[in-house]
Amino acid sequence: MAAIHCIQALRFPSRTHVFFPNGDQNRYNIINKKQRGFLVIASADKNSVKEIYIKSKVETLLDSVKWDDKGLAVGIAQNIDTGAILMQGFVNRDALATTVSSKKATFFSRSRSALWTKGETSKNFINVHDIYLDCDRDSIIYLGKPDGPTCHTGSETCYYTSVSDLLENEQVDENKVALTTLYSLETTISQRKDELALPQTGKPSWTKRLLLDHDLLCSKIREEADELCRTVEENEDKGRTASEMGDVLYHAMVLMAVKGVKIEQVLEVLRKRFSESGIEEKRSRGQTS
Amino acid sequence: MAAIHCIQALRFPSRTHVFFPNGDQNRYNIINKKQRGFLVIASADKNSVKEIYIKSKVETLLDSVKWDDKGLAVGIAQNIDTGAILMQGFVNRDALATTVSSKKATFFSRSRSALWTKGETSKNFINVHDIYLDCDRDSIIYLGKPDGPTCHTGSETCYYTSVSDLLENEQVDENKVALTTLYSLETTISQRKDELALPQTGKPSWTKRLLLDHDLLCSKIREEADELCRTVEENEDKGRTASEMGDVLYHAMVLMAVKGVKIEQVLEVLRKRFSESGIEEKRSRGQTS
Repeated sequence: MAAIHCIQALRFPSRTHVFFPNGDQNRYNIINKKQRGFLVIASADKNSVKEIYIKSKVETLLDSVKWDDKGLAVGIAQNIDTGAILMQGFVNRDALATTVSSKKATFFSRSRSALWTKGETSKNFINVHDIYLDCDRDSIIYLGKPDGPTCHTGSETCYYTSVSDLLENEQVDENKVALTTLYSLETTISQRKDELALPQTGKPSWTKRLLLDHDLLCSKIREEADELCRTVEENEDKGRTASEMGDVLYHAMVLMAVKGVKIEQVLEVLRKRFSESGIEEKRSRGQTS
Repeated sequence: MAAIHCIQALRFPSRTHVFFPNGDQNRYNIINKKQRGFLVIASADKNSVKEIYIKSKVETLLDSVKWDDKGLAVGIAQNIDTGAILMQGFVNRDALATTVSSKKATFFSRSRSALWTKGETSKNFINVHDIYLDCDRDSIIYLGKPDGPTCHTGSETCYYTSVSDLLENEQVDENKVALTTLYSLETTISQRKDELALPQTGKPSWTKRLLLDHDLLCSKIREEADELCRTVEENEDKGRTASEMGDVLYHAMVLMAVKGVKIEQVLEVLRKRFSESGIEEKRSRGQTS
């Protein structure tokens, strides 16, 4: 046996599964000190011990999920930048294990009784950045970035049927997905921009005036940024700061509509800048968070 | 019978349920012109016809949901302002009907076999603004505003267990819920603010310098707003606009941390300003979207 150069003490519950890479159990010395709840693995191969360690941690995680009588939990895919709920499916033990290792949102198809990685047909994978379990451990969020529209209809998300529209007898519009405040406002501004192509009647709305008059728009953005700063400089109350920040956001979003830039792109810039992978970029700018 | 002053033609599928207020069917004349798919209701009471109309629309909606073999669909409560997934439960026909009428997120408790309105004990109701169905009609989003923390643990949401933390052997922190980019950045800035109370070692990060030096912070906000405007004035590319908007957002969020204002408060201001209920406010400011 090769020289043992790596020993790790792993604190696992007694029911922990231990996996040996390549089934080669002979290359490891295992000492299970049950009285202290420790599992000590010694190996000639540092990477193999790391692999055992991670696999064992994943098994402990999978054991901790409260699978239902069909071995399933609810899985919800959410856009990490916008917060949009992309789709919901069901997840079994294999689906969660696959998502943990592949970082692609994977579900269990109840109709086909098979694992199903979202995007395996459409190529619109959901790239999972983190996974969250709820307090009951029977509901799972895949927080990730979709490569493209998630719904098989081509809609950005599967949730495009508004009950208030249904009750008001309005047509279901696959482009009108469930939107939280920021994206609802973004959509309204975008609609005002589209309406500019139509014949105009009456006095244009404020948004339309800003969309048409870039000097006015830029002077408002500078003015609102100044007013936001003055809430600090003149020690104004919190309500004033929230209101001025609302003005900055709204006017800046009109500018983004003018340029055809989405909030999601801005958030992606921020995520990359402030995520660990962006530390080097920040350092190169001489700034760290 | 009182004079008939209201006739409404309702286009419903033939299986539509019709409900009569107070069970008083005698006060209505019903003509079911099946050959044209119309249901015509005549009544002495305009409000009663409206009530029948809405109840019938709700029944049509409830019929359209693909309830599973236990009569359930998945229900997900989402914060309308932040997009945070608050909790997930199961919804039956009565729970959805109750949510539609009461506007409080209501579920079916599988353990207690009873309707359960979130907040009935804690008073932390989720006030539902709209409901969305997915493309398969077996998954439902309650898009609403919570009155307080949603989780029974006191956490803002039930999703505070990060799998990447579990795999890295870190403690589960109930304050660290699943966060999308904007709120993750907000949390990082807030942590930097908290760290200022501790003894400082080494060169302070850029965020800490901004938190400490309000003149620097305000000059950066004015500078970044100016640079954002120049992407329009000097016709710079979209990538530049996204990057400058990222700078505006980040620096403005540091200012909000200084003032102790949350992004959620800003979004609430915007929602109220731009929602229908806010139209009067906008008019009073001489501005409409």
